[in-house]
Amino acid sequence: MLGSTHGTLTTDFRARVVACGEEPHASVVSLPTATRQGGLDVSGRPLHLAVPDLDRFFRPRSMAVVGASDTVGRPNTGITRQLIAWAERVGARLHPVHPARDAVFGRPCVPSVAALPEPVDLAVLLVADPLPVIEELGEAKIPFAVAFASGFAETGEAGAVAQARLAAAVERSGVRLLGPNTNLNAFEEFRDGLEGPAIALITQSGHQGRPLYALQELGIRLSHWAPTGNEADLETADFLAYFAQRPEVGAIACYVEGLKDGRSFLLAADRAARAGVPVVAVKVGRTEAGAEAAASHTGKLTGADQVVDAAMRQFGVVRVDGLDELQDTAALLARARPPRAEGVAVYSISGGTGAHFADLATAAGLALPALSPAKQDELHTWIPGYLNVANPIDNGGHPVGDHRGRKIIDAILADPSVGVLICPITGPFPPMSDRLAQDLVDAAEATDKLVCVIWGSPVGTEDAYRTTLLGSSRVATFRTFSNCVTAVKAYLDHHRFASGYRSPFDEAPRTPSPSFRKARSLMRPGQQLSEHAAKQLLRAYGIRVPREQLVTSAAGAVRAAGPVGYPVVMKASGPHLAHKTELGLVKVGLTSASQVRDAYRELTDIARFESVDLDGILVCQMIDRGVEMMVGVTHDALFGPTVTVGLGGVLVEVLHDTAVRVPPFGEKEARDMLGELRGRALLAGVRGGAPVDVDALVEVVLRVQRMALELGDDLTELDINPLVVLGRGQGAVALDALAVCR
Amino acid sequence: MLGSTHGTLTTDFRARVVACGEEPHASVVSLPTATRQGGLDVSGRPLHLAVPDLDRFFRPRSMAVVGASDTVGRPNTGITRQLIAWAERVGARLHPVHPARDAVFGRPCVPSVAALPEPVDLAVLLVADPLPVIEELGEAKIPFAVAFASGFAETGEAGAVAQARLAAAVERSGVRLLGPNTNLNAFEEFRDGLEGPAIALITQSGHQGRPLYALQELGIRLSHWAPTGNEADLETADFLAYFAQRPEVGAIACYVEGLKDGRSFLLAADRAARAGVPVVAVKVGRTEAGAEAAASHTGKLTGADQVVDAAMRQFGVVRVDGLDELQDTAALLARARPPRAEGVAVYSISGGTGAHFADLATAAGLALPALSPAKQDELHTWIPGYLNVANPIDNGGHPVGDHRGRKIIDAILADPSVGVLICPITGPFPPMSDRLAQDLVDAAEATDKLVCVIWGSPVGTEDAYRTTLLGSSRVATFRTFSNCVTAVKAYLDHHRFASGYRSPFDEAPRTPSPSFRKARSLMRPGQQLSEHAAKQLLRAYGIRVPREQLVTSAAGAVRAAGPVGYPVVMKASGPHLAHKTELGLVKVGLTSASQVRDAYRELTDIARFESVDLDGILVCQMIDRGVEMMVGVTHDALFGPTVTVGLGGVLVEVLHDTAVRVPPFGEKEARDMLGELRGRALLAGVRGGAPVDVDALVEVVLRVQRMALELGDDLTELDINPLVVLGRGQGAVALDALAVCR
Repeated sequence: MLGSTHGTLTTDFRARVVACGEEPHASVVSLPTATRQGGLDVSGRPLHLAVPDLDRFFRPRSMAVVGASDTVGRPNTGITRQLIAWAERVGARLHPVHPARDAVFGRPCVPSVAALPEPVDLAVLLVADPLPVIEELGEAKIPFAVAFASGFAETGEAGAVAQARLAAAVERSGVRLLGPNTNLNAFEEFRDGLEGPAIALITQSGHQGRPLYALQELGIRLSHWAPTGNEADLETADFLAYFAQRPEVGAIACYVEGLKDGRSFLLAADRAARAGVPVVAVKVGRTEAGAEAAASHTGKLTGADQVVDAAMRQFGVVRVDGLDELQDTAALLARARPPRAEGVAVYSISGGTGAHFADLATAAGLALPALSPAKQDELHTWIPGYLNVANPIDNGGHPVGDHRGRKIIDAILADPSVGVLICPITGPFPPMSDRLAQDLVDAAEATDKLVCVIWGSPVGTEDAYRTTLLGSSRVATFRTFSNCVTAVKAYLDHHRFASGYRSPFDEAPRTPSPSFRKARSLMRPGQQLSEHAAKQLLRAYGIRVPREQLVTSAAGAVRAAGPVGYPVVMKASGPHLAHKTELGLVKVGLTSASQVRDAYRELTDIARFESVDLDGILVCQMIDRGVEMMVGVTHDALFGPTVTVGLGGVLVEVLHDTAVRVPPFGEKEARDMLGELRGRALLAGVRGGAPVDVDALVEVVLRVQRMALELGDDLTELDINPLVVLGRGQGAVALDALAVCR
Repeated sequence: MLGSTHGTLTTDFRARVVACGEEPHASVVSLPTATRQGGLDVSGRPLHLAVPDLDRFFRPRSMAVVGASDTVGRPNTGITRQLIAWAERVGARLHPVHPARDAVFGRPCVPSVAALPEPVDLAVLLVADPLPVIEELGEAKIPFAVAFASGFAETGEAGAVAQARLAAAVERSGVRLLGPNTNLNAFEEFRDGLEGPAIALITQSGHQGRPLYALQELGIRLSHWAPTGNEADLETADFLAYFAQRPEVGAIACYVEGLKDGRSFLLAADRAARAGVPVVAVKVGRTEAGAEAAASHTGKLTGADQVVDAAMRQFGVVRVDGLDELQDTAALLARARPPRAEGVAVYSISGGTGAHFADLATAAGLALPALSPAKQDELHTWIPGYLNVANPIDNGGHPVGDHRGRKIIDAILADPSVGVLICPITGPFPPMSDRLAQDLVDAAEATDKLVCVIWGSPVGTEDAYRTTLLGSSRVATFRTFSNCVTAVKAYLDHHRFASGYRSPFDEAPRTPSPSFRKARSLMRPGQQLSEHAAKQLLRAYGIRVPREQLVTSAAGAVRAAGPVGYPVVMKASGPHLAHKTELGLVKVGLTSASQVRDAYRELTDIARFESVDLDGILVCQMIDRGVEMMVGVTHDALFGPTVTVGLGGVLVEVLHDTAVRVPPFGEKEARDMLGELRGRALLAGVRGGAPVDVDALVEVVLRVQRMALELGDDLTELDINPLVVLGRGQGAVALDALAVCR
């Protein structure tokens, strides 16, 4: 009977989704109507993000500055001056608002928001307490506001209360607010005259955006900067989704300390993924120390790092650790055209440099295809025959000084296996490096393949770098091997991801499955279920458990053992019961009625001594083959229920070899989870053993996801451990399970 | 009986070493006489490195240039010109040697080495084939030569033969040769006027040293550059050991593709460790692709990367992956004084930057101690009270603009828990960053603690960076968070390592232990030993094995089972027999004579069917408790025998969770190996289990090291798997073993 439900649920689910009218979409740019219209998934989380029309925020036709000042020495005076300059630059009419001034910097001042001479798109609030102004803004139907004031959630509990009050007022008013605890970065001037797709920047700290802003001096275009501050209202997700639809934006770079809401971030990342716009992010929270420091800065939760990491990967967000990597990766992803091939050719004037770079590139997962013998022969017409040109290509130095230099580069770029040419120049050696740099720039102009150069000199004032390389918008220039490798890997990964992207939100379940009704009746609010009850929950979702019976007498145990089949396992079952093995509450390999009778007595005796509350003794089928895995559900503060798979048994605690995903996700992600395990070889069969039933394991992961979604916040924790995965075609069996209800 | 030998060998060994007159030395600088005098360890490897007196190489009083030229257009002309300039600079008399010229660049030319007018210290060979010249140099008693010619081991087999011939001629001649396949880097001009301890540079590729050479433009002093090329004679180790004794050298930076000899490298690193001189190295070979590319560049083996990694760590060599990390780490280690405390304080004008940096620093293992409440109160006299100053310290920006800026920095530096102050400035914001930079430079002048600044702007032409920060020899300036973290971690690790360093060579065994005689008689050249024989080998070294008997009849098996004790395990034993479990050649849990008889028949039947050559059937004590580990010996191409410990059983194959060491190493290293295992928590007891006998495991590792040293190259492979480690005080038992003799 158990076997008969196996494998049906996923199919059901898909059938139902299609029946709702959601056809799987073929292209990454076509959004299914159902998704545009929004709605909630079965866990009650939104499937749609309403993107505010931030055009009026970033390019207001008119704006008000509440608390404007021109009094010498007041902090607001400098800010007002900068806002006036910015308004002139973007062509916005600026209206100072102050109850006690007639004019500010010669501009007529009105006493209140209500007195503004025309409707404005944006109000900048320079007042220490923005709360009283919000209602006025709402009445004046001003769509956007910015509040610089600090002293909110970043300062502790009292500040968090004040921020909640502000957020409530903002919601009532209909105004969309940036801040509080933000700064002038949204009103920075961007350089004119820079070409190509731009980087749009989102930061939760102005200082952290500073080096990205400085990229303009290296010729990289910036289009927007959103300093999101405490995110009482507008959050990272709003800007992310908005930037993803702007035609001038080639990539979005983020510095994130914490997220306001996990789901809105994922919906925004989903929009970027559908639009093929790469997102690169530094996210603080690798360590507890970092998470705490971030919390005391903007008062936001960082979330469990493994979950953040997985969630970002699921939606194609490139996570990097350094601001330098953020700059280099975002700049490359913004500007480089999609790759023609995934092969990387490494070309250097030194065999040592080529070997070193190839080592790092290969370690990071880049593919350096060996060039064909014909191509190598061609290269050897210009490069001495004793030098290795298979890839990495070592020219030995001399050919770069004359006409051969350019011919070599063109010949490499013409190879169909090569999508990216990388030339590491470790330092200035003008007789060689200057002409090489120029040849690379010229060759890059003439190809649609990606040409990357590393200028490794720590000085960075050399002409070949400043003028030749940075003067080219076609060559991607880096300063370190490592950042080049990171960026090129992200570039190839992004284009592979984007071209195969299917939004999991399109296929997320919206209504409960038939399993849900059965499962709901098994839930016991506030309790940890007994093993027996937890297994019934699994059965409700078609997850196989061993043949077993719950008995309450020794005679009952003996009666049960027959149909279960000898040898049997006997275990105590009761709510709040964990670590049964350590307590001696598990007996395995019982082969006779007398052993079963003895075991019953012993188990109940121990339970009495340990004051364990039992609902009975389980007599279970013994399964001593297969590979022990674990599959579980935990709740993340940011993302809600998450699904984990890992090595099982005692190993899960020792090795923490687990992979996690945030629902909704599809079968491919479930399969990818297994590939992330260090111990994945266990599944392929070790020491000549047969491979296990990976399909059955994947199916369990998907069914557990369904439980996580349908039981939602009511299922605080689920831990199937061990889940024994049998040989191919033989399925997987949950030998033990722990479930905690909210 | 087995138990009685347990724990005695290590003690023996130490007693003997002391008896030989080698007192353990108390300080890192005092070299025991025995070590200075050299000798061999028990494996026949040297315990001493003869360091060539390279003063005469780097500062020759006179030199010859064989093949000197001033003919326009000849490659040797440019080289000759550069050598003349260098000779003038270092005050060496230069003698051109050419059979067909009277003068070169106006200097009188002699026709041959024999005709040189005075003894010279150094001959530079510009000839395509240096071989014929070597004998002449020997006859002229010239101590050093450099050969630029290429076409040797880097070009393949024929070249390797030519190189071997050259090396033999060099050895006969008594000349010490740098090269072939090297370049002019040893004759670069170093900048005058740079102060402080210098970096000495060793590279196996000139281009790879280029960015380190350029460090001089940032104010970092360089003293030497040894481009070692193919190392037919002089090798990295020679320069390493020489530089370690030069007073002006603060740190040694290396770019290594392959090592000529593992032991000489370790002996050189040992000298640097004794002298407290830090060594930082990039070593190619993380991947096979990198190793292959390196081999085709200088024709050297890269060695197994895990072994190289361990060997470097054992001797305190800091391994980094990028040339940028090499620069930044070497520069810091060369110049910074020893730390007064290990605590790191992070100070920033932005809470976001502080949080981000703290996250990366903590993840790398740096300690950011929370400042005391009193210190925090002090800082809050200048920093607004709502800002977090516990560490990271957030000043919110404003105090850096006035007198408070310097006071804050001084107050942090005065904290006794703080040894390092790090201030990340992400980018230029002149109103704040310029004064902050100046305050940091001033504060660094007034303290003996380390002050680090990150100037994160990608531009790097700003005055605050170029003039203020780089103008200071007291502030360590970085461009990325990550390189600062790497360098500061290396700095604190180095000083901790150097202050506790005890050379393992001082305590390395020189004569075989009593175990060796017994063990030698068990070795079977060219064979894999049977399990029974391999276990006898272990017993010879006092490693405990289960009670067991080798039997050759069913009746013998039953007779053996009694004294062994039921339940027993029975296994086929024979040479060349691996993977017994998979073949069905192991029976466990046999509880009766009839089961033993049946098992005997079944095992011999299977062996017949599988055509397995048996020396009998083992009847063994069954041990089903404890934690399964593995301990083994493998031979590394560079370093010879190495000792591995890891998780045992099937896990070792799946998880590769192992740690390795190159002998000789002491007990502390053996213990550290266990700390490197991901699964180390298994040893501490999981799920309430008791901790295992870690001391016994360490003892087995040390005994296996002794086997590796004494049996040396004759023991090609040893694999104890599983080694079952029992509860504390109960020892460890080798349940199975595989040994292969050369």
